Amino acid sequence: MTEIPKNHPRYHSLMTRERIVEGMRNGIVAEAGLIAHGRGEAFDYLMQERTLPESLYAEQVAVERMIRSHSSVISVNGNTVVLAPREIVELAQLTGSMIEVNLFHRTGERIRKITEILMEHGAIEVLGKDPDARIPGLESERGKCTSQGIGNAEVVLVPLEDGDRAQALKDMGKYVICIDLNPLSRTSRTSDISIADEVNRALNNMIAFAKDEITINGEFPDFTVPDQFDNEQNLKGILSRIKRFL
Amino acid sequence: MTEIPKNHPRYHSLMTRERIVEGMRNGIVAEAGLIAHGRGEAFDYLMQERTLPESLYAEQVAVERMIRSHSSVISVNGNTVVLAPREIVELAQLTGSMIEVNLFHRTGERIRKITEILMEHGAIEVLGKDPDARIPGLESERGKCTSQGIGNAEVVLVPLEDGDRAQALKDMGKYVICIDLNPLSRTSRTSDISIADEVNRALNNMIAFAKDEITINGEFPDFTVPDQFDNEQNLKGILSRIKRFL
Repeated sequence: MTEIPKNHPRYHSLMTRERIVEGMRNGIVAEAGLIAHGRGEAFDYLMQERTLPESLYAEQVAVERMIRSHSSVISVNGNTVVLAPREIVELAQLTGSMIEVNLFHRTGERIRKITEILMEHGAIEVLGKDPDARIPGLESERGKCTSQGIGNAEVVLVPLEDGDRAQALKDMGKYVICIDLNPLSRTSRTSDISIADEVNRALNNMIAFAKDEITINGEFPDFTVPDQFDNEQNLKGILSRIKRFL
Repeated sequence: MTEIPKNHPRYHSLMTRERIVEGMRNGIVAEAGLIAHGRGEAFDYLMQERTLPESLYAEQVAVERMIRSHSSVISVNGNTVVLAPREIVELAQLTGSMIEVNLFHRTGERIRKITEILMEHGAIEVLGKDPDARIPGLESERGKCTSQGIGNAEVVLVPLEDGDRAQALKDMGKYVICIDLNPLSRTSRTSDISIADEVNRALNNMIAFAKDEITINGEFPDFTVPDQFDNEQNLKGILSRIKRFL
């Protein structure tokens, strides 16, 4: 990896980029994953590389929803695992979710490597290598899933996912939570809860919410999580902030 | 390459992405080039994947400036050559510009490949492989250039370039024209003329201007190119349009 000084103003963003490039060299991230990462960087830049209040709110509602659900699954791909392996495992444990590997460019080799990384970070079980069910509406390889995981899940968290998969999961009747820096993407517009935040920040905030550890300016946030979450309205709030920044 | 049907609504964008991935596999595009392409895609999306009036205006002024200059150079890298080899060669011929290869991740192999592609597309001379001058302010490898080309040029066109290089060229007293989809980037803010447009569209428009062939809705555009071009004002116009889109 290229050496980046810790005091560099864009240290986190550059380190993240390095990890994605390294992930591609190791066969975990697909080439399209590098381009997708670049798109995310542009939107993160427009949000000034910080968690917006609307995003934090979505993160809290999402954690509540995962904890309350009968069965929740975190669907992971190469980019997610390269950027936040520890966070995925910890959030799964805290919310009682299963982890399932689901790839756009599915190969046995890539699934094995992703599973290994998650195991190294403490995962006890990772689903995905032996699919026995299908997500209708996706092509053969992409649509594979397990009945123990996504197939029968009530809630699915999809970090860094494409619009087709989000839509197909919605069509299956799943409650879909996405993490996607682009508030205008099809994934964001399709999901029940859209978290427009960088995946590492998002997952760490969600972990803090799950542990009841989050404080803002030293105080616990005075949020009341409503029964109905208005995703469209929340995304509009983010767009307004980006407009003000521009 | 993946087969993409010609009638796909995002055919051009997907083909462009394929060419960048292919370019990386062939050792022409660097890994960071893939991520940079993704950032560009996000901004192109915010401009609805079309040339905005402000961008077209900048393209016209840029062509005029290149034709009027004593010596102009088009500085190319892997991304540019993979996306628009024919356009680079044609614009160089029409504006009497030289072509020089300048890389962030400079290797002899990559320079040779880029030169080859340009030659295949009709370039008679491509500078860059035998540098004998320096761009002050850039690290050793990145700062190499030729005295015949960039070293003594009056105007330098830098498509898809990073902010450091644009700034270093400005510091050398060059008149810098950039093509960069991010109207907020350091490259855009540093350059004398910033063209916020997709590189293929931008170069094709510039070629049409150079040939006096451009018509808008069947008519020649009624532009008057001013002696003074207000780049900041022009970029503000683009930001306003993005805001309205959001």
